Amino acid sequence: MRVAIINGPNLNLLGSREKDIYGGESFEDYLEKLGVWFPDIRFSYFQSNIEGELVNYLHKAASECDGVIMNAGGYTHTSVAIGDAVKAIDVPVVEVHISNILAREDYRHISLIAPACRGSLFGFGLAGYRLAAEYFSNSKDSN
Amino acid sequence: MRVAIINGPNLNLLGSREKDIYGGESFEDYLEKLGVWFPDIRFSYFQSNIEGELVNYLHKAASECDGVIMNAGGYTHTSVAIGDAVKAIDVPVVEVHISNILAREDYRHISLIAPACRGSLFGFGLAGYRLAAEYFSNSKDSN
Amino acid sequence: MRVAIINGPNLNLLGSREKDIYGGESFEDYLEKLGVWFPDIRFSYFQSNIEGELVNYLHKAASECDGVIMNAGGYTHTSVAIGDAVKAIDVPVVEVHISNILAREDYRHISLIAPACRGSLFGFGLAGYRLAAEYFSNSKDSN
Amino acid sequence: MRVAIINGPNLNLLGSREKDIYGGESFEDYLEKLGVWFPDIRFSYFQSNIEGELVNYLHKAASECDGVIMNAGGYTHTSVAIGDAVKAIDVPVVEVHISNILAREDYRHISLIAPACRGSLFGFGLAGYRLAAEYFSNSKDSN
Amino acid sequence: MRVAIINGPNLNLLGSREKDIYGGESFEDYLEKLGVWFPDIRFSYFQSNIEGELVNYLHKAASECDGVIMNAGGYTHTSVAIGDAVKAIDVPVVEVHISNILAREDYRHISLIAPACRGSLFGFGLAGYRLAAEYFSNSKDSN
Amino acid sequence: MRVAIINGPNLNLLGSREKDIYGGESFEDYLEKLGVWFPDIRFSYFQSNIEGELVNYLHKAASECDGVIMNAGGYTHTSVAIGDAVKAIDVPVVEVHISNILAREDYRHISLIAPACRGSLFGFGLAGYRLAAEYFSNSKDSN
Amino acid sequence: MRVAIINGPNLNLLGSREKDIYGGESFEDYLEKLGVWFPDIRFSYFQSNIEGELVNYLHKAASECDGVIMNAGGYTHTSVAIGDAVKAIDVPVVEVHISNILAREDYRHISLIAPACRGSLFGFGLAGYRLAAEYFSNSKDSN
Amino acid sequence: MRVAIINGPNLNLLGSREKDIYGGESFEDYLEKLGVWFPDIRFSYFQSNIEGELVNYLHKAASECDGVIMNAGGYTHTSVAIGDAVKAIDVPVVEVHISNILAREDYRHISLIAPACRGSLFGFGLAGYRLAAEYFSNSKDSN
Amino acid sequence: MRVAIINGPNLNLLGSREKDIYGGESFEDYLEKLGVWFPDIRFSYFQSNIEGELVNYLHKAASECDGVIMNAGGYTHTSVAIGDAVKAIDVPVVEVHISNILAREDYRHISLIAPACRGSLFGFGLAGYRLAAEYFSNSKDSN
Amino acid sequence: MRVAIINGPNLNLLGSREKDIYGGESFEDYLEKLGVWFPDIRFSYFQSNIEGELVNYLHKAASECDGVIMNAGGYTHTSVAIGDAVKAIDVPVVEVHISNILAREDYRHISLIAPACRGSLFGFGLAGYRLAAEYFSNSKDSN
Amino acid sequence: MRVAIINGPNLNLLGSREKDIYGGESFEDYLEKLGVWFPDIRFSYFQSNIEGELVNYLHKAASECDGVIMNAGGYTHTSVAIGDAVKAIDVPVVEVHISNILAREDYRHISLIAPACRGSLFGFGLAGYRLAAEYFSNSKDSN
Amino acid sequence: MRVAIINGPNLNLLGSREKDIYGGESFEDYLEKLGVWFPDIRFSYFQSNIEGELVNYLHKAASECDGVIMNAGGYTHTSVAIGDAVKAIDVPVVEVHISNILAREDYRHISLIAPACRGSLFGFGLAGYRLAAEYFSNSKDSN
Repeated sequence: MRVAIINGPNLNLLGSREKDIYGGESFEDYLEKLGVWFPDIRFSYFQSNIEGELVNYLHKAASECDGVIMNAGGYTHTSVAIGDAVKAIDVPVVEVHISNILAREDYRHISLIAPACRGSLFGFGLAGYRLAAEYFSNSKDSN
Repeated sequence: MRVAIINGPNLNLLGSREKDIYGGESFEDYLEKLGVWFPDIRFSYFQSNIEGELVNYLHKAASECDGVIMNAGGYTHTSVAIGDAVKAIDVPVVEVHISNILAREDYRHISLIAPACRGSLFGFGLAGYRLAAEYFSNSKDSN
Repeated sequence: MRVAIINGPNLNLLGSREKDIYGGESFEDYLEKLGVWFPDIRFSYFQSNIEGELVNYLHKAASECDGVIMNAGGYTHTSVAIGDAVKAIDVPVVEVHISNILAREDYRHISLIAPACRGSLFGFGLAGYRLAAEYFSNSKDSN
Repeated sequence: MRVAIINGPNLNLLGSREKDIYGGESFEDYLEKLGVWFPDIRFSYFQSNIEGELVNYLHKAASECDGVIMNAGGYTHTSVAIGDAVKAIDVPVVEVHISNILAREDYRHISLIAPACRGSLFGFGLAGYRLAAEYFSNSKDSN
Repeated sequence: MRVAIINGPNLNLLGSREKDIYGGESFEDYLEKLGVWFPDIRFSYFQSNIEGELVNYLHKAASECDGVIMNAGGYTHTSVAIGDAVKAIDVPVVEVHISNILAREDYRHISLIAPACRGSLFGFGLAGYRLAAEYFSNSKDSN
Repeated sequence: MRVAIINGPNLNLLGSREKDIYGGESFEDYLEKLGVWFPDIRFSYFQSNIEGELVNYLHKAASECDGVIMNAGGYTHTSVAIGDAVKAIDVPVVEVHISNILAREDYRHISLIAPACRGSLFGFGLAGYRLAAEYFSNSKDSN
Repeated sequence: MRVAIINGPNLNLLGSREKDIYGGESFEDYLEKLGVWFPDIRFSYFQSNIEGELVNYLHKAASECDGVIMNAGGYTHTSVAIGDAVKAIDVPVVEVHISNILAREDYRHISLIAPACRGSLFGFGLAGYRLAAEYFSNSKDSN
Repeated sequence: MRVAIINGPNLNLLGSREKDIYGGESFEDYLEKLGVWFPDIRFSYFQSNIEGELVNYLHKAASECDGVIMNAGGYTHTSVAIGDAVKAIDVPVVEVHISNILAREDYRHISLIAPACRGSLFGFGLAGYRLAAEYFSNSKDSN
Repeated sequence: MRVAIINGPNLNLLGSREKDIYGGESFEDYLEKLGVWFPDIRFSYFQSNIEGELVNYLHKAASECDGVIMNAGGYTHTSVAIGDAVKAIDVPVVEVHISNILAREDYRHISLIAPACRGSLFGFGLAGYRLAAEYFSNSKDSN
Repeated sequence: MRVAIINGPNLNLLGSREKDIYGGESFEDYLEKLGVWFPDIRFSYFQSNIEGELVNYLHKAASECDGVIMNAGGYTHTSVAIGDAVKAIDVPVVEVHISNILAREDYRHISLIAPACRGSLFGFGLAGYRLAAEYFSNSKDSN
Repeated sequence: MRVAIINGPNLNLLGSREKDIYGGESFEDYLEKLGVWFPDIRFSYFQSNIEGELVNYLHKAASECDGVIMNAGGYTHTSVAIGDAVKAIDVPVVEVHISNILAREDYRHISLIAPACRGSLFGFGLAGYRLAAEYFSNSKDSN
Repeated sequence: MRVAIINGPNLNLLGSREKDIYGGESFEDYLEKLGVWFPDIRFSYFQSNIEGELVNYLHKAASECDGVIMNAGGYTHTSVAIGDAVKAIDVPVVEVHISNILAREDYRHISLIAPACRGSLFGFGLAGYRLAAEYFSNSKDSN
């Protein structure tokens, strides 16, 4: 099973800045753990600060993967383009946010991506990625 | 580990009505599966259509459980009282919704409960409860 | 034909308080008149000030009645839970309000229940219940 | 007893267009049935697509009728003028809508006419006119 | 000097209905007084309940009059068409309302006509027409 | 092919007023040019300042034409009735506005007619009518 | 007859600044003309840029005058205090604005003073004060 | 004199949770102090997390008490039903909130209960109940 | 103990105008009663209709008093400046309103002062000042 | 004549996804047809999912083309940057949308680009591009 | 060169209160430093808590100064009167705020003064006044 | 001292387009002047029309510079991503806009970047960059 993980703007800073909010672990380190926990999944990883490159990668993932785990960061709340891309492709997308966006500023309460996603996970820290992977792993058998 | 599952209004109808949206499985049946998947967790289950009884049970769970999985149904969007109860207790609460509330009517886009929760899970169907349990199960070790 | 009449909060005070708005007749007295006007209908009656009990009774009515006449009182404007219950059950529900809610405070202009109802009747006083019963009575033949 | 039925814009198309929503019966046919059901009422009927002619007819009806049944169609949501006319005349007006306007687009949730009406009836199809007539018929005796 | 007075919907009822708000004098009677007070002005008068006829008459007045006194009644708050007509013509238009629209329902606080008018007069009763005529009368000399 | 052109309020003034915005050409003159450019289309033309007459003509056009080009003028932003009429009829309607309504006052940014139209054209001046006719002309063959 | 004219903030600049909007005449000069036009009225005049002094003067005028002509300038749109003062006193107040506030910025469309005034006059330039005085002069006889 | 104190949802936790906000004293302990401070008042006390039970108790208190002190907790902001109950009964109700609801989240700035109350007291901590009792105590004599 | 009472705009009219709302007692008379009821408190009193003078006096009171009782009148709803002043000073301020501002016009539902106050008291008439004084008097001992 | 066609995010998927909405034809195929229909126009084509590249290309087109046909896709509703670019350049831009954005989700009803465009075309499917080209083709001669 | 510095409400407290936000330096001390840094500028200084006095001083400064540096404090967000005064005078005004008003409460995000100012400076602490003076100093030569 | 200047979309056009708004000087020319005025600052310069590249450069500047001067152009009002980047980095950022964004269209009144900036400067033309540099230059010594 192939699952693409797509991280949006500023998530390249994970582990090096604002550690009190996002923790001190880099995503690359966490990715390795995911590989250990889910030996049956082949993960690919893409991060970009550029909205349109995230759209591009979603198009690409649609033909190469069985599932997408996406954290669109700040574009979550403003990007009609990414929301349209998620809706346009057939592969199931699970939305992850490290913090609970519903407990932060008002303008973060809206997700233009959620309506087209299979499911959304907010506030579990990096563990949200693990639960999303778990979802894909479980969905191979009945749940 | 003890985890309380609390379901709100109309979720007693699961499996018998609106099967196209919520599926044909009753929650009682699903609860059994959860027991099998998580042998290390002792689940308790409570369902009520009465807002204040959900508050009562949250108070009770606070002293008897290590975690709460809550689907407050229609009260999610209107109950300051349940949100206050979640904030008042110390035990971590994970919010689950079967459908993706962010993809439905506008008045379902607000959760008064999410800001006080550890994390929120929307749209995974009954599998959302499994992922929530997975979160508690994982959190015993590092994640 | 069996029709359940469900009255929500404060409607137990009918006939004893705010008589200038709601008149001086108790609902129990009016219920008797309904029995006389519609000999072919067996009415059951339930009143509660508790939102969740109204949900419970709607679930119960769904399997025991051919129609429901509901005045959800103050819950009309705030209860996603009752609106969901009306939508979840198959039996037709007719919404009644004694006063014209569209002519009162702004927060009474919204009905979360109406969208799932067969029809809505506002402002006819107690006569609204009679018209609702008339609707069920007529609907046995073509109209 | 004389009751005027006033229908607003596009209701002349009843029975010939959008039959899935409004049914296949023309209002003229239904009017005949009303005559049979209510032999004690003399119905007059007026339809216009022109807002101001509806105002004119309301003025006229005020001196010639004992009651008015009005479906202002699309003007319901925008016409201060018709609302003012209903308020200006003394004869009781009952508002009817074939579909449940509270379950349609947001801009149909407002009625500028309802606040001045005796009562409002939404969503019963053509049967709403029958219930409105029933209201006038009943109101001759105590209800 | 020629001045057209244009009255909108329901103003034909002046003097016969809602006398507590609008007084017991018909506009025809008041028009005679205006003739006495302003012997130098030739008044023409038009009343219609139909929005488009008011537009038509404004077009006509543009070439026949030196000034227009307009009370658009309920169309004041909703008619882009009349506002556009006032803007399109060159003759100065003075807006009059018998009651103070800023002291009534919220939806009457907006005038789509005022922005294109020379001036607006609210709340003086029928005396507002006199003041408007006074304005035209005065404007012949310096003011 | 028969195409009806329907113009709403104040468009009878085209060419004689506000020439800086709308140009100095009357619609009658432009209509002649259209006849030259599209010899295969038989144009009928209707203009009214009265909302309901536009509704009437839409009903009429539905049975007599293959397409409608409509500029509802100021009614565009307020007329539920015309929007309903467009939706009720089967013949395709193309909406035209001479100026770009999205670049003018806020209250002109809404079109209650557009959602039921085949397409909308804003801001091309009178050339918008030519493009709309082009659309109908092209649609006879594949595009 | 005694009439107080009260002018609010920045109106002391009349005639010396922004002459294209407000004209080149000082209010003191205009006041003299008013004295000539209305020999039967004794005018007193007060101008202040301080909100509370306008309140003070309204209290004072209540016992000394038969009428007040008030242009509250920029306080019109924000001063609950002045609105309360107008409501608290018994003497009739007529509101005047030199420009048409309904044709300017959105925040000038609201008048917190109008609801308590006898009438409001917008957009007539300085001539608005003359019309207001005319109102008081006329109101001594029947109008 | 009999005064009922009614506490809403989560107020049973007073003294045991969120002590930094609400203090460490249980309401039962405070009730005893009230008894000492006001020997002339017989207090009854009711707490419930269930909205409808608060309605029930208000109905009951109406016939048994001379005054009600009510802290509706989270229902304050959402309960049309409790607001209606307060309006329906004749006994004076004083609203109390421990914290200053106007200084907290936006959704706590609204009280649906206040408009029907004799007075409202926010932000005095438990001392608010003492002041409310003081009000009833004082009101026996002139104030 | 020294307590300053500060009254805002129009409160100098207490007892002489709008007696049906505010009663017939002047504040000076009530102040004397307060002196009798609270012999342990030395009251100072200040009233002004000028917003900035209220700010000035708050600054002054901060160094001379142990507590402030403030009724900012109409400035309550609009004065960021007074709210800032209350926040800037260290002495506790209790907000009083004679009428229940939450039961009046919408623009009176907001208090820019409340968030910085120790507590707020609405709707008790002049008795609100007594309760506020009671609060300061009680707060010397435990409450 | 040189005309640039610029397509925004997800429009590279045309013809391969969501065919029920957008049809089964790729834009490249359609571009060829355009070449046939308009032999006098040299078309250049640019598509990007990256907002800033669309800005870049607009700058470039400004010096190389006589007109631009732009479908900014999802950026239409959120991109101040593209709107500013259209305003900054001198070459006329015609806005095209395949579907009628005014008939879809609320957040698609806004175009930040339209106010700076020569004209806008919504809802004609791919034929919208043809009409836009027609506009440029016609504008060489009088229209 | 003469530059007036005008400070609004509560800024007289600078250096003595809320030092964590505004620092411990009084404005008088800072004014001396400004004199040292800008020997070519003659500064005048005015502070008032009274809105109208700020208007008065702006009028005065217009004829006596070459520039104004204004911090209107809390009146920034509510004073149409000060905004009008800035617009009415010819001398350039630079707006300064010590804290970043765009990062504080919502009601501080609006400046009614900024639109009429030459420029605005937020969040630089007292250094903002230095930068504003720098602007005037630089503007004597080309920049 | 190293200061990065970052310019967003369309600012590459400075000096060549819309010269009436932005002046005729290119930013490159102005940059040279800055070098002369501030010999103690080493300026680096980056301009991009691509939102994500601005995020990238902010990350880079964080480790290479002592301060950032940022004009995010049209992304100012919509980019959560850039706002997050400014918040994530430690280096102080000063926001500059050439025109006064608070005096332009409503959608330009919001800055998602300001809340994380040290200070904001609007409306000074290119001189705003000079003042921002002045701020960094001054901040080396006490101010």
